[in-house]
Amino acid sequence: MSSIDTIKRPIEHELDKFEQHFRALKSHVPLLDRIMYYIVRRKGKQVRPMFVFLSAQICGGTTEATFTAASMVELLHTATLVHDDVVDESDERRGFFSINALWKNKVAVLVGDYLFAQGLLLALKNKEFRLLEIISEAVKAMSEGELLQLEKARRLDIKESVYYDVIRQKTASLIAAACSVGAASTTKDETVIEQMRLFGENLGIAFQIKDDLFDFGTDDVGKPLGIDIQEKKLTLPLIYALENASRSDKGHIMNLIKRHMTSPKK
Amino acid sequence: MSSIDTIKRPIEHELDKFEQHFRALKSHVPLLDRIMYYIVRRKGKQVRPMFVFLSAQICGGTTEATFTAASMVELLHTATLVHDDVVDESDERRGFFSINALWKNKVAVLVGDYLFAQGLLLALKNKEFRLLEIISEAVKAMSEGELLQLEKARRLDIKESVYYDVIRQKTASLIAAACSVGAASTTKDETVIEQMRLFGENLGIAFQIKDDLFDFGTDDVGKPLGIDIQEKKLTLPLIYALENASRSDKGHIMNLIKRHMTSPKK
Repeated sequence: MSSIDTIKRPIEHELDKFEQHFRALKSHVPLLDRIMYYIVRRKGKQVRPMFVFLSAQICGGTTEATFTAASMVELLHTATLVHDDVVDESDERRGFFSINALWKNKVAVLVGDYLFAQGLLLALKNKEFRLLEIISEAVKAMSEGELLQLEKARRLDIKESVYYDVIRQKTASLIAAACSVGAASTTKDETVIEQMRLFGENLGIAFQIKDDLFDFGTDDVGKPLGIDIQEKKLTLPLIYALENASRSDKGHIMNLIKRHMTSPKK
Repeated sequence: MSSIDTIKRPIEHELDKFEQHFRALKSHVPLLDRIMYYIVRRKGKQVRPMFVFLSAQICGGTTEATFTAASMVELLHTATLVHDDVVDESDERRGFFSINALWKNKVAVLVGDYLFAQGLLLALKNKEFRLLEIISEAVKAMSEGELLQLEKARRLDIKESVYYDVIRQKTASLIAAACSVGAASTTKDETVIEQMRLFGENLGIAFQIKDDLFDFGTDDVGKPLGIDIQEKKLTLPLIYALENASRSDKGHIMNLIKRHMTSPKK
């Protein structure tokens, strides 16, 4: 049994019920349903709903609101993936062709917007205003984080603190939101909700640091190497290397980086 | 005095106050602020806030909630314009370069998402849940309408009813939302709110029919002609022409259209 299965065991029943619940979200636009089907099919390990249900469990137990919370997180996550396909202009994501490559940019933007709206309406229908607030803060933080990265993190003199600002907003805020909506779906204690948010945030930061390390080939996880540098994303290992290098090593590294950087894609 | 100035006269004071209110929305990401400044600068006649304030006036008078409603409509409208720049891949919008051309697709998607989130948080902060629901329904309808157009309205055999479905969702739903949030900001009477929504919807449909006519050059409004056909958007004048033409005229028109259609842009 893999470690993720061990982690999921206490909430197996909830995740199964959630899966059916989520598949039932339908629109009356056939194109949208085909895309939704395709998105559900290519879904990964359902890490985010897992955090929602586990957080609810330790804060008092799963409620009806927990299912709403998990659906909102999953709709937001899917919307973000779809918009990321435009943002990154990647033709492939985890082995499947991206929505973008298959249906083009315009459809990706519209489907993302539609999914955001679905998540909102779900919360409003169930009068889950606190959950809605947590999710909206996450949307804002994620887009701000991406914009901050575009503006700041592609410069060679990026500071460690900026790196942390970017990954806190861009990556960690969604996991933080998953943990805090899980808590908020079962308790009104704001101290507990804030503690769960912090747990998720730190976990998200740790995840991103580890993910950025893979780009330097310290471990074989089947990902291509050196992509971040090519795309001018300067991450922690490189920031440390540049800070600690001698003057001549630094110059040498800088030259190597500049030679391998591609100009930003259209 | 132009006719729009006459229409605005009863709410001049409110629109001035709103303008200051809206300019004050700031982020802590400098790139976002530059873009927001640019968006505010290129703004047109503020037709949508006008509908919000006029609707509030006739349903009981402007309240604090009316300013929230107008800001939400304006944030949503701006987000939609920014996302449309990706969707349409237009390099120019009303004489200014589009956000897309200046900052590229990725920034356009992120800024649109950020603006959506701003609108949501504004409503949540003020506990305006009814307004939020109206706006969320509009977001959903607008993206569904665009997707419906992509799927259906670019076929030569488009029916009049599909044309109306598309423009009702795509164009009319935002004006409908502006009128109904205006009403909902000052009355709890759902009959009145629904009447205002219907008024806005019909006005939006009328506006779009008129706008689609311009493409055929019946009036000189400074817009280039024949763009809709080139982009495979088949609108009412053409639908009527095809329905009423003789068999041979129909074939002739079809050939002309096919020759002038460009393949959909990437």
